[in-house]
Amino acid sequence: MTIENKLRRSPHKERSDFAAREAILKRAIVAHVGITIDEQPYVLPVLCAPHNNELLLHGSTASRLFKALASGTPACVTITLVDGLVLARSTFHSSMHYQSLMAFGHGRELIELDEKRLALQALSDHLFPHRRAELRKSTEQEIKATSVVSFPLDQITIKVSDGQPKDDKEDLEAQIWAGILPMQTIYGNPIPAEDLKFDLTAPEYIKNWPLR
Amino acid sequence: MTIENKLRRSPHKERSDFAAREAILKRAIVAHVGITIDEQPYVLPVLCAPHNNELLLHGSTASRLFKALASGTPACVTITLVDGLVLARSTFHSSMHYQSLMAFGHGRELIELDEKRLALQALSDHLFPHRRAELRKSTEQEIKATSVVSFPLDQITIKVSDGQPKDDKEDLEAQIWAGILPMQTIYGNPIPAEDLKFDLTAPEYIKNWPLR
Repeated sequence: MTIENKLRRSPHKERSDFAAREAILKRAIVAHVGITIDEQPYVLPVLCAPHNNELLLHGSTASRLFKALASGTPACVTITLVDGLVLARSTFHSSMHYQSLMAFGHGRELIELDEKRLALQALSDHLFPHRRAELRKSTEQEIKATSVVSFPLDQITIKVSDGQPKDDKEDLEAQIWAGILPMQTIYGNPIPAEDLKFDLTAPEYIKNWPLR
Repeated sequence: MTIENKLRRSPHKERSDFAAREAILKRAIVAHVGITIDEQPYVLPVLCAPHNNELLLHGSTASRLFKALASGTPACVTITLVDGLVLARSTFHSSMHYQSLMAFGHGRELIELDEKRLALQALSDHLFPHRRAELRKSTEQEIKATSVVSFPLDQITIKVSDGQPKDDKEDLEAQIWAGILPMQTIYGNPIPAEDLKFDLTAPEYIKNWPLR
């Protein structure tokens, strides 16, 4: 049994096009990484960013789970975006709009300083667009104190559920509202740090940050 | 090595109190379930709801991954809520506010019809509060066509990151705004189903649905 046919439950929801993949990666900030240690699965949330056709995963050099991922143990990395609730006329047909990407493979820890610096810049630019320009450059010590794993995206399964409520014909006669309740992750008002020394307002560029 | 000490990387972020657990479970709608088949980890997003001190997981009877979970294979179930971005004065200290819960154990598939009906009602009431009162009762056939797994919450690790940016002392002198950019998942305007036959407006109760 291949990985692919294990996932062929809802073939109508599967997408293979590049656009569907990019739409998910663009919004993703957290990925759930699955690894197995001594037959016990672990699912670890990590910060992520697409980079050079791979997915960067950001962890701590001190985390044992992240170390196992970095060592190249077989892994599954899943990104899920929830887009809304589907309110059907029965509980059975009620569901969710979502996009998910599952990637299978082995992580590769970035060691070489320049490659790691570029990867950390890509992570920063994905999570905090435009901010890096006003921050000081990362030191060599900081780069070494961070663990970055690059994960391949050549074996992936994408699912997108974005359809209408699919009610039983008899239920359509019920006087019950049905439809989609969209969900979206938004940014609230910025809260200044308690140790902010100067009379600064939050930067303008955060107003243009992509919704997640 | 026990499961617990594998996770003791950031002891200051770990929480053991009941309130932290309930805060996460109340908002959770998707959990990421990790299982291992033939040494390959899989991470599957599933709808979830707390019920009777356990976590209900909702799947399809046709999903092979969900079947493996239902059969009691060792699993890890992780719930992650992203609460905001931490904008520090350096890339190194920039991070995220989040709450996460990892649960370890074995799923138990609900078979008995009455127990399963109650579980499906709990799922519906968690995901679509107040809606069940206006929907018809689920049929026996519908209940049998759904797979529900109950997952224990007696072996969990909770992490909460909600602190201030922790900048290096030298960086505090930089004329750079620092702080927290809160994130929240909100509901948008309801979109009526294309096959809605009557002139109905979206139900009032959705205005009171908890933010996720």
